[in-house]
Amino acid sequence: MFQTVTKTLLVSSSSLVNRSICQSLRHYCNQSSTKLRVSEALTGAELGKNVRVQGWVRSVRPQKKNLFLHVNDGSSLQSLQVVGGAELNDPLLTFGSAVEVTGTLRKSPHPQQPVELGADQIHVVGECNSVDFPFKIKERHSLEYLRPLPHLRCRTNVFSSLLRVRSEATTAVHSYFKSNGFLQIHTPTITSNDCEGAGELFQVEPSGPDFEEEVNFFSVPAFLTVSGQLHLEVMSGSFSRVYTFGPTFRAENSQSRRHLAEFFMVEAEISFTQSLEDLTKVMEGMFRSTTEHVLAHCADDVGLFHKHVTPGHRDRVDAMLKQSFPVITYSE
Amino acid sequence: MFQTVTKTLLVSSSSLVNRSICQSLRHYCNQSSTKLRVSEALTGAELGKNVRVQGWVRSVRPQKKNLFLHVNDGSSLQSLQVVGGAELNDPLLTFGSAVEVTGTLRKSPHPQQPVELGADQIHVVGECNSVDFPFKIKERHSLEYLRPLPHLRCRTNVFSSLLRVRSEATTAVHSYFKSNGFLQIHTPTITSNDCEGAGELFQVEPSGPDFEEEVNFFSVPAFLTVSGQLHLEVMSGSFSRVYTFGPTFRAENSQSRRHLAEFFMVEAEISFTQSLEDLTKVMEGMFRSTTEHVLAHCADDVGLFHKHVTPGHRDRVDAMLKQSFPVITYSE
Repeated sequence: MFQTVTKTLLVSSSSLVNRSICQSLRHYCNQSSTKLRVSEALTGAELGKNVRVQGWVRSVRPQKKNLFLHVNDGSSLQSLQVVGGAELNDPLLTFGSAVEVTGTLRKSPHPQQPVELGADQIHVVGECNSVDFPFKIKERHSLEYLRPLPHLRCRTNVFSSLLRVRSEATTAVHSYFKSNGFLQIHTPTITSNDCEGAGELFQVEPSGPDFEEEVNFFSVPAFLTVSGQLHLEVMSGSFSRVYTFGPTFRAENSQSRRHLAEFFMVEAEISFTQSLEDLTKVMEGMFRSTTEHVLAHCADDVGLFHKHVTPGHRDRVDAMLKQSFPVITYSE
Repeated sequence: MFQTVTKTLLVSSSSLVNRSICQSLRHYCNQSSTKLRVSEALTGAELGKNVRVQGWVRSVRPQKKNLFLHVNDGSSLQSLQVVGGAELNDPLLTFGSAVEVTGTLRKSPHPQQPVELGADQIHVVGECNSVDFPFKIKERHSLEYLRPLPHLRCRTNVFSSLLRVRSEATTAVHSYFKSNGFLQIHTPTITSNDCEGAGELFQVEPSGPDFEEEVNFFSVPAFLTVSGQLHLEVMSGSFSRVYTFGPTFRAENSQSRRHLAEFFMVEAEISFTQSLEDLTKVMEGMFRSTTEHVLAHCADDVGLFHKHVTPGHRDRVDAMLKQSFPVITYSE
């Protein structure tokens, strides 16, 4: 049904691994410290324990006696503050470099952050040349500036927040349907139907010299799905509640790269419905539970968007959750 | 991020809705009975309550005083036994017809089944002509026989079990990665890379007269993804643990329709790994937790396959769960 591929990426972008760093790291890792993600460290559950945190440096502030770092590993919008003695400073410790920090998790004296990591050791796992690195510290880069940097833009708050929200929203959609007795169906991506003309189709043909002679690989013309509806309708004659959630395709004639030729779509089919209300209830429930889940699990990320990207949206979301959805007839 | 389409399918295959049946049904539904799925009814949690169950008839046994039905709605391999007075019999009540049954859920006198539904009313919602219906009662149909019947074959035990297992396995894969701190990434289906030559590619081009003049819709040649690896590698430079689970495509030169041109694949990337063990642990954990989840949630479905489709497989699965996975080096 599925295959598995799991691979490793040891270091961060555009950096060389220093062999001696690797060796000391390997030596070091035999020590017993709990490996934590930044989001886990920030909960404070492991307060007072010896922990190990890995991530990318967001800021470095060397002072006369102390060194302050902010480390982020993508698990949270918030970074973890690391405090070490001035002797831990290292010229390789720059904005964008990948580090592993070991030390004791302790209460922070600053009211804005719950915890900080008192560092015993800081290893630079991946260097980052701050001259070549396209992001500047504490600067807000525009989406236009980030566009040609697909390999790095997820290090910015706006992209990492968006992807965390998307991941949680996906989880919430699946969990809503599952808890309401829907069976998940993987409707096919390659199909020979155009689903009642839902949109312009992409055609699929093998590429490469092996296939040039053949007329149709699948013996019939094959397209990318515009909707799983027809497959779900068939399934709903056996399972009374089914849904699908996956990529869908429309070849609308647009010359822009911003046109969504590929997008994710939720579709559901219910048998034995008696009124339209049976359906509107499901849709309202899905919007409501997904929104609540995202607000509960990504409060900081949503906050960032409401502050900088879509001001005022938070109020609209709150209003939606408080009211029941208005229902109007077609003629209204 | 996604769109929603929810639609209705009122009746089962190849059946006409009798208007008077619909009207009496609508009238009936104003009564207060709890709507249950067959799987929910079988748990016995609602014992003694007035309930409503909808599904497809798997068997009809009219006797002098009583009528026995088996009703299945795809939520479980087991059907629900319905017992009613002989006066509830109806010539439309045939194998394959869609029904709604209301009555009291009670303990069954037979030790093999925990509950039965004492019917007060039975409505045939969708008729089924038993002469035209391609399945015969209590007969095991071969996979070859079912092949040209895609619209009905999910009513058979083997297909419905398979799809329930697939749905639960999908849930288990997502929940394993989520609980281990992985971010889900929807890697694109349409892509311009061939991922280090992982396989033969399908090329994607718009179909239809609007596009005949254009050379490339996306301004570069576009293909269906053979792997999300390259996208995940980029993401793992920002989020230390990422995964994707979706359709993947290979245009291998095979003339068979049984060749999997499209299949679901799990891929994961982890940053800051120190040894191969960091990766093998994740893979072992995924197989283990997914198998345990499926065995726990689909015991009957797995049992059916172990009995009729892949005898002996259950022992291999149990052995796998008991032992830790052997690890060998490449040269071994």
